[in-house]
Amino acid sequence: MKNDGQTTSVIALGGLGEVGKNMYCITHDDEIIIIDAGVMFPEDELLGVDYVIQDFTYLKQNEDKIKALIITHGHEDHIGGIPFLLQSVKIPKIYASPIAKDLILKKLNDRNIPYNDFETIDKDSTIKTKHFFVEFVTTTHSIPESFAIAVHTPNGIVFHTGDFKFDLTPIGPMADLHKMAELGKKGVKILLADSTNALVPGFSNSESFVDDTLNDIISRHFGRVIIATFASNIFRLKHIVETCKENNRKIITYGRSMENAIEIALNNGLLDDRSIFIDANKAKDLKKNEICILCTGTQGEPLAALSRIANGVHKQVTLMPDDLVVFSSSPIPGNAASINRVINKLYLKGVKVFTNSELSNVHTSGHAKADELRWMLRLIKPEYFMPIHGEYRMLTEHCNLAESCGVPKENTFVCQNGDVVLLTKDGAKKEGKVQAGDVYVDGSRIGEVGSVVIKDRKLMSRDGILVTILNINPLTRTLLIKPNVTTRGFVMVNENQALIQQIENKINDIVKNYLQNNTYSYLDLKNQIILELHPFINELTGRRPIILPVIMEVKQS
Amino acid sequence: MKNDGQTTSVIALGGLGEVGKNMYCITHDDEIIIIDAGVMFPEDELLGVDYVIQDFTYLKQNEDKIKALIITHGHEDHIGGIPFLLQSVKIPKIYASPIAKDLILKKLNDRNIPYNDFETIDKDSTIKTKHFFVEFVTTTHSIPESFAIAVHTPNGIVFHTGDFKFDLTPIGPMADLHKMAELGKKGVKILLADSTNALVPGFSNSESFVDDTLNDIISRHFGRVIIATFASNIFRLKHIVETCKENNRKIITYGRSMENAIEIALNNGLLDDRSIFIDANKAKDLKKNEICILCTGTQGEPLAALSRIANGVHKQVTLMPDDLVVFSSSPIPGNAASINRVINKLYLKGVKVFTNSELSNVHTSGHAKADELRWMLRLIKPEYFMPIHGEYRMLTEHCNLAESCGVPKENTFVCQNGDVVLLTKDGAKKEGKVQAGDVYVDGSRIGEVGSVVIKDRKLMSRDGILVTILNINPLTRTLLIKPNVTTRGFVMVNENQALIQQIENKINDIVKNYLQNNTYSYLDLKNQIILELHPFINELTGRRPIILPVIMEVKQS
Repeated sequence: MKNDGQTTSVIALGGLGEVGKNMYCITHDDEIIIIDAGVMFPEDELLGVDYVIQDFTYLKQNEDKIKALIITHGHEDHIGGIPFLLQSVKIPKIYASPIAKDLILKKLNDRNIPYNDFETIDKDSTIKTKHFFVEFVTTTHSIPESFAIAVHTPNGIVFHTGDFKFDLTPIGPMADLHKMAELGKKGVKILLADSTNALVPGFSNSESFVDDTLNDIISRHFGRVIIATFASNIFRLKHIVETCKENNRKIITYGRSMENAIEIALNNGLLDDRSIFIDANKAKDLKKNEICILCTGTQGEPLAALSRIANGVHKQVTLMPDDLVVFSSSPIPGNAASINRVINKLYLKGVKVFTNSELSNVHTSGHAKADELRWMLRLIKPEYFMPIHGEYRMLTEHCNLAESCGVPKENTFVCQNGDVVLLTKDGAKKEGKVQAGDVYVDGSRIGEVGSVVIKDRKLMSRDGILVTILNINPLTRTLLIKPNVTTRGFVMVNENQALIQQIENKINDIVKNYLQNNTYSYLDLKNQIILELHPFINELTGRRPIILPVIMEVKQS
Repeated sequence: MKNDGQTTSVIALGGLGEVGKNMYCITHDDEIIIIDAGVMFPEDELLGVDYVIQDFTYLKQNEDKIKALIITHGHEDHIGGIPFLLQSVKIPKIYASPIAKDLILKKLNDRNIPYNDFETIDKDSTIKTKHFFVEFVTTTHSIPESFAIAVHTPNGIVFHTGDFKFDLTPIGPMADLHKMAELGKKGVKILLADSTNALVPGFSNSESFVDDTLNDIISRHFGRVIIATFASNIFRLKHIVETCKENNRKIITYGRSMENAIEIALNNGLLDDRSIFIDANKAKDLKKNEICILCTGTQGEPLAALSRIANGVHKQVTLMPDDLVVFSSSPIPGNAASINRVINKLYLKGVKVFTNSELSNVHTSGHAKADELRWMLRLIKPEYFMPIHGEYRMLTEHCNLAESCGVPKENTFVCQNGDVVLLTKDGAKKEGKVQAGDVYVDGSRIGEVGSVVIKDRKLMSRDGILVTILNINPLTRTLLIKPNVTTRGFVMVNENQALIQQIENKINDIVKNYLQNNTYSYLDLKNQIILELHPFINELTGRRPIILPVIMEVKQS
């Protein structure tokens, strides 16, 4: 990557071609500012992987230049990578809002990572370094304290929207249209904007509409109301709390992230009354219409509160026919099947279920749809445009939107993670690449689940594994004990003794034949067994388990 | 189950609480008629399972009563289970339309199952047994030759819609509204109706609209057109063929099921001209706008033609910027993520992509939406109603639709597979249950993948397996060789030699300690190793691999 001290680089280390693991770097000479450090939740096929994070190589190589990590808001795909980043790269300071900071601290404490170099920011904060001047712009999103970030560089203003929508009747503070307009008037060199809903035409609904619907439900329903929602949508929680108070309902909460969010809301003055929350055992004296259950599980996660309630295995909640379950949420792609399972179980128990639809506004997206994206493009009227936070189809369509709003096509950049957009006094261009990619986290360790390990998991997940132990005397080229076979995930062993016997005989034949006709080699024998056994087993069963021959060389002469 | 010779039973052995593995039985005294024998494709969590089929116990126990298997249409979820059924239960005769029969024969041939007792049916066919009289009613669906089935029983008419929609401008024959009306007027005891789209308001689009859109695309686009669609939608294939012919495009087909469908269409007179189909190598002389590629892969299946094209690994097709890819299809729930992956790869290659949306009608559902279901209910005006073919939320909503169309609520039955609906001269009621459930097919064997095997696969898919071999002399209670560890899907062994060493040392300690302090027992020692090793490994790595200790007892004294 070019560094002549004159140009400014904009690089995504995550967030392009995907929804998740956001991380954007702005570099000028000897200074780097990082915006966000999120995780991505793995697709189903990444078996056993807990998180996907960024490749930190570029940051490690330029560790001494890093001035700050600035957080736009406290969602997982923007802060979830911080524990891993701090373990790999020295970050001198993290700038975050009070709520984002509390959420990050929770993470760091859970993993015993000591870190104290926080600076809390608000809408009026500024950050000054040798080359950069950073200011914050209030936006609306599905978590309080969401900010866009304007980075003044020697080559013009980089405006990063963070995650945003426009809501003219928001529950929290109104987005600062005037500050955006002012920056737009001053002249923005390049706009980096949230592309999540670029494919969705129109305007997103206001959170106020959702609150109206929830009002109706909570005030009119004659039984218990069970609401599952995203814990981080603290404005919605606040509204539910207030509506329950007005309607004389007490709230029982289930789910760790829900309890955590409420604690953070109370600490930060977004909620002020603890008395509305009661323990499950205190609910016995209440009437059905005096109870609201607020819980996690909007995505059908098997262990979440709502799934356990639907499955009838929740310790404290048994469904009753008068219950009304509200999914105040939307399905994250890939979770449709598990959500469906939960909904069907609720239907089978005769419970009434509300999900979000055109007919019932019980949720609204936190991300701007096409017309809102056009508003942002028109307010900021950037010279150049780089869509972020989205899959390629979203980025591509977002560029089309930009073009329709006056940004010349050649000034729009669909980038991949690692691509460098170079800003100069005269303009901007895509030039060069830094290392970027996916790093898998499984358990407590970073990056050591390689593709071989995942491939093995995939094979075993399909047809299991078959282990055979061979005691061989390499000197006399004899098999000391008849081979036996142990399997997991292959067939029901008890019901298939004959099959196992057949396989053991086959291995016996293969090994004896090999030893008679070849010079013994550990690796050769292993390969020979796999080579002959695979088609044999496939023919018998239609399955292809991993075959793992373990050879014990017993050198008795 | 009651059998007094007077009552008629309606039982679903599959198709309720799910979309898939349809099988409905109508029983009277000593006669059983089976309608359809489909498979279901397993959800992701059924690792390694190829198909889910019905539990055939009820049919096996009543094998001598079975008079016929009648097929409504040739889709997998209605015929895919036939090879398994025929291997387990004697079926004296299968009644199917010519196309359905060809599709079934293909399946039987692929698996070397000899069966010849077919009788082909058309709209005018009737079947007569001692107690039953069966007639067929033409419907519209996304495969030609789809029928509803009216079974006249001693206790009234059972009307089974099959899969259907109403299309007033269909490509194939018009649904026989008059025969439905006539049966409705005569009096239908119970209606069994397709619930797939019961949750979707309104009317489904006509196939004619789709054809208009495809016309536009094929005639106007200046480059190659690549169309992925469901192979069994032969009317759509026929239309694409005709439009290509008019626009001087030749067709190259990819995908086994596509080639198979075209062969069947040619055999059955639905297509008449083989010359439009050309080999890929003959396309070199053609201009871009003289080529249409027709292929499989609408669901993002990794090995299907379209996915290989998108990944750049297809042997014969390399994408060009002028290509237009049309998904003439809809995502089957659960496939969204893999379809998305393919679409994003196409976007990244700069190719234009059309998917079905409100703005571009390149597909329409084959299943009736809410208003069409109301039409069926009004035409048939049944005394009783049993929604079929759907998840519980669909069945429940379908009952609400029936109620809105004059069927008394107490005359509607949301059933589970195995529930018996008993018809008498006086009425109908839900009473009793026969055995029903899911049977998993993996490879060529039926039903031997139990839940333990799948649980093991799930565990291994998350954190892999760790095998340790112990050579033990039980007589002297000594460990003969230091334990070694082999793993698959756990960690990258090369990069974690120290970790493996640590684990081997720990096992050594556990075993030595056990042997010193206990009377040796094979099972005890195995359990002890698992018990102590699990937390040790979890502490070190955050993972929980399956631990498989293999003990070799070497009895030297």
